Amino acid sequence: MEWKPAIETAMQRIRPHVTRTPVLAFNGFGLGYPIQMKLEQMQHTGSFKARGAFNTLLKGDVPAAGLVAASGGNHGAAVAYAAAQLGHKARIYVPEIAGPSKIALIRDQGADLVVVPGAYANALEQAQAYERDTGAMQIHAYDAPGTLEGQGTVMLEWEEQGLDADTVLIAVGGGGLIGGALAWLNGRRKVVAVEPEQAATLHNALAHGPDTATDVSGVAANALGARVIGRMCYDLAQSVGVQSVLVPDQAIVTAQRALWREARQLVEPAGAAALSALISGAYRPEPGERVAVLVCGANIAPDPFTG
Amino acid sequence: MEWKPAIETAMQRIRPHVTRTPVLAFNGFGLGYPIQMKLEQMQHTGSFKARGAFNTLLKGDVPAAGLVAASGGNHGAAVAYAAAQLGHKARIYVPEIAGPSKIALIRDQGADLVVVPGAYANALEQAQAYERDTGAMQIHAYDAPGTLEGQGTVMLEWEEQGLDADTVLIAVGGGGLIGGALAWLNGRRKVVAVEPEQAATLHNALAHGPDTATDVSGVAANALGARVIGRMCYDLAQSVGVQSVLVPDQAIVTAQRALWREARQLVEPAGAAALSALISGAYRPEPGERVAVLVCGANIAPDPFTG
Repeated sequence: MEWKPAIETAMQRIRPHVTRTPVLAFNGFGLGYPIQMKLEQMQHTGSFKARGAFNTLLKGDVPAAGLVAASGGNHGAAVAYAAAQLGHKARIYVPEIAGPSKIALIRDQGADLVVVPGAYANALEQAQAYERDTGAMQIHAYDAPGTLEGQGTVMLEWEEQGLDADTVLIAVGGGGLIGGALAWLNGRRKVVAVEPEQAATLHNALAHGPDTATDVSGVAANALGARVIGRMCYDLAQSVGVQSVLVPDQAIVTAQRALWREARQLVEPAGAAALSALISGAYRPEPGERVAVLVCGANIAPDPFTG
Repeated sequence: MEWKPAIETAMQRIRPHVTRTPVLAFNGFGLGYPIQMKLEQMQHTGSFKARGAFNTLLKGDVPAAGLVAASGGNHGAAVAYAAAQLGHKARIYVPEIAGPSKIALIRDQGADLVVVPGAYANALEQAQAYERDTGAMQIHAYDAPGTLEGQGTVMLEWEEQGLDADTVLIAVGGGGLIGGALAWLNGRRKVVAVEPEQAATLHNALAHGPDTATDVSGVAANALGARVIGRMCYDLAQSVGVQSVLVPDQAIVTAQRALWREARQLVEPAGAAALSALISGAYRPEPGERVAVLVCGANIAPDPFTG
């Protein structure tokens, strides 16, 4: 598949609908070297997921039955938002693990919401059944070309904005965001995949094969807790190359606090995971290596206003 | 006084020490037109105040007695931070009205802190006595050339970043930030001064003369609650021209929530005041008028992590 033109087309498609999220150079976090950051958590509904949702919606013909998605929270909110903006109906299946803040966020977008007992896999199963029964368009949270192309626009946009880095650190759940980044960059910059020790899905797949299932838990589980890595991400990681790094939950929480204390950015644990690899030393840049950190989600619980 | 070269010199002086805060174009808040924003609340210690503090410190010879400042919170935190970064000691007088979050923030910077009963004027009185007794360098929160020049670098920097606006909305407390902006812009763009109805200090001064004292209260009082507008700001407002706009507290709170809901920026009430003038309709741009909003402070109470 030719990812580069597909991601360029996705960018043109979604540009009127998404926020061109800001970038900055930042000195701090006790690192002793400057980093670049992109504040993609400022995207509509608080994560990068709106990009893949808009791209998929705008790319295909949406049936009268509308859209369906399963989501740990952020993807569901993005699909519901994009559907509402473009005048489609959306059915979202969300696992209990998403928590009340994210569930409220999805409901606030006006979607038809079903909370499913258990974890993400259960929600996905019900979403697939709904797709079969109604003919609704399924928007997969990470393992579909439209999703990956949309998420790939983050790196395209960052390069348009003058990204000046040898290495980009990106948090990994199911692999949509990092897959899109690998597809766009195609080896032009080093990509570091950061996962919680308690959700080491890509890490385990790289060690044991693409279908490896991983038990997931911890502070970022509702955003980074896919049990099996997306196949598109896996294939890109194999062909393009990626360095896998794991971080303990405590490092994620420390980075989350540092982002607030030093830069007044309030993010969810998953949004601070990439930075935590630097602060904790799980990833140590070489002298002179220019490093960039993608901040990707801010749907924190409890929500500071709605609880 | 020649403000333009002084602000350019200030920018050179402070550039290694401050964050070049990000800017973005944003569609949302129900406005129906795009706005530019600068996220100056990402500055060190959570407000623009670090600029004036660093400029003053780097401009003069700091005596062995160190620094002294009186502050409703944000200025004190900035002076304490700048002093610590540059190896000076600092005594900060803060009124009770600053609240526990801001008082903790100042203490965390390592300053010698005195909490003064009552409002800002009482803290300023004690700071002036300390200056007389010890020979410490006083850093005024808003009405001193070094402070104004430092705050003026916000607009210089924003223009370097490609500000594309006819009109800039800025919240007003004592007038350091807007004074710096007026000094830098010198009429090249329209400046709208936004004040809470319950802290209409500049508004009243423009109506009744520069020494007019205003009773201040409300949600933004610890940041925007100067009783008398700074004389430098007043003179600049008279010579350059400014449009004064008032907003009710409820509009400020609504804007504060909108910034979180739509852009995941958690700010203090003062930081949302400028935006509130647009959302509430207190300022209505002409068709085609390109509008910019300065987001200036994020030291919210309670602090999301430290309470």
